[in-house]
Amino acid sequence: MNKHVLAIAGGVGGAKLVVGLAHTLSPQELTVVVNTGDDETFYGLHVSPDLDSVMYALAGLSDAERGWGLAGESWRTLEALGRLGVDTWFGLGDLDMATHIRRTEMLREGHTLSDVTRELCGALGVDANVVPMSDDPIRTIAVTDKGDLAFQDYFVKRHCEPRISAVHFQGADEANPAPAFAMALDGFEALVLCPSNPLVSVGPVLAVPGVFSAIERFTGPRIAVSPIVGGQALRGPAAKMLGELGEKVSCVGVAHRYVGICDVLLIDRVDAAHAEEITALGIRPYITDIVMNTDNDKTRLAEEVVWLIEGWNDSSR
Amino acid sequence: MNKHVLAIAGGVGGAKLVVGLAHTLSPQELTVVVNTGDDETFYGLHVSPDLDSVMYALAGLSDAERGWGLAGESWRTLEALGRLGVDTWFGLGDLDMATHIRRTEMLREGHTLSDVTRELCGALGVDANVVPMSDDPIRTIAVTDKGDLAFQDYFVKRHCEPRISAVHFQGADEANPAPAFAMALDGFEALVLCPSNPLVSVGPVLAVPGVFSAIERFTGPRIAVSPIVGGQALRGPAAKMLGELGEKVSCVGVAHRYVGICDVLLIDRVDAAHAEEITALGIRPYITDIVMNTDNDKTRLAEEVVWLIEGWNDSSR
Repeated sequence: MNKHVLAIAGGVGGAKLVVGLAHTLSPQELTVVVNTGDDETFYGLHVSPDLDSVMYALAGLSDAERGWGLAGESWRTLEALGRLGVDTWFGLGDLDMATHIRRTEMLREGHTLSDVTRELCGALGVDANVVPMSDDPIRTIAVTDKGDLAFQDYFVKRHCEPRISAVHFQGADEANPAPAFAMALDGFEALVLCPSNPLVSVGPVLAVPGVFSAIERFTGPRIAVSPIVGGQALRGPAAKMLGELGEKVSCVGVAHRYVGICDVLLIDRVDAAHAEEITALGIRPYITDIVMNTDNDKTRLAEEVVWLIEGWNDSSR
Repeated sequence: MNKHVLAIAGGVGGAKLVVGLAHTLSPQELTVVVNTGDDETFYGLHVSPDLDSVMYALAGLSDAERGWGLAGESWRTLEALGRLGVDTWFGLGDLDMATHIRRTEMLREGHTLSDVTRELCGALGVDANVVPMSDDPIRTIAVTDKGDLAFQDYFVKRHCEPRISAVHFQGADEANPAPAFAMALDGFEALVLCPSNPLVSVGPVLAVPGVFSAIERFTGPRIAVSPIVGGQALRGPAAKMLGELGEKVSCVGVAHRYVGICDVLLIDRVDAAHAEEITALGIRPYITDIVMNTDNDKTRLAEEVVWLIEGWNDSSR
């Protein structure tokens, strides 16, 4: 392809399509912008869960069975931290720990999160252009019946049990898109919203000043893949959160969140009955198999997305 | 005993006698002050090698075979750091890493190294009073034919191969003794210089302002144990360093370094021939078995030290 694709992704779910896109497009054709709203300091180390999920997936190092983190992981340092009296509710493995140690060191030395991400990707042989949404701190806060909770507190510590009434993005107003994101926003020729949680994975990226409006006025193809299949999130709390925020718990709820910034929404065959509701929102449903289990699934779905982009012309909207 | 003993120690060698002293004395009778001149930041983490050696030894966690670090150690995080392109010449194990992660976090939060040491010791069940020589940064610098080298660079990276011409302690002039050390200096009733390198383990402690003069004018018993037996250092580069600095490479060289601050030097039976030279320096040699291999050896030697302290009277000097 000769188009520059801007892909927006959260963690593990979105990373699957990113892997497919990276197989399908050259590094020059793709900028992957990743949510950093879940970033948090654990044990004094800067952890970027979504950046790492994308990076590990692209490097082929993810643990497919566990569904997060690195294959062949062990937990000796975390256990030793526990023996030192530290509350170790956030699991960081021994291999993963190296990433956070190195990131924290570089950030303390004055490097930006973009610099760190570039260096870590380079070291792991990832040649895709992976970019944090911002080098400035933005923190996703879940407003819940148990109070305002930082995302990892809500997601990992409390297993998404509190009922949410809103989500906001602390620091977003003062943040800037990371330089490579700003550059991509200036010249992208297609947008892909990966199958990530629209509220807390894609949402924070859209909250970075200038991003939503740039996508809104963009006239090229804007393709999203639903993270919800058959009323269930493929991973994580997207379904529960959509419901608690009054959205339909289906790909229609996803479509509703993307009104104005999405032209085509890929939904699963099992959701074909929702096609009409999505059309009514001004978004074209494209029905296919969107569950990605194997690397073949990832590449096949990415090829469909690219095919939709290539076939796009101004009369498509 | 009813005397407050101030023990000064470096790393692994000195820690052996500290273990014996902690078996022999109650926590109220003993303050262990540890060299921090070897402290260094590796991979963004604050590492205190000598404090950790003493703490791990007292907790019964040391690796006796390897001679340093923790028993049952593994190296997965370090290997992963290596894969991230980090030069991992300084070995930190997965279990040990937890100590440095926690220490670094607490220091960043504004706690002092004394606070951190107290918390870590408490968590590991060490009830001895282990105190860093200072909460201020002091760095041991080896002046060598390869330039001025930070101690770990000289010791670990370059295997003590450069020839030294001097040792100095960067930052010592502006440093204060740690609060518990200052308190101990005010009221100690006996001094023990543990079998550590007199130049780079005990030396930095003596360089903290006020320490040397307090020990010099102290009239109670001041007992040292030689780290050199039969012309060889029991561990580390003490013998090589003494030689390069023009000292005798024997317990006599150790005695020479301690003139004015030591009344009795424990030397090994194999060094009995040196007794006269030591006496000539104004230090009483006490000949016994000073090599500590087993826990029994440590306790037995500590008991001899305590016996010398208890038998002390003003006519002893």
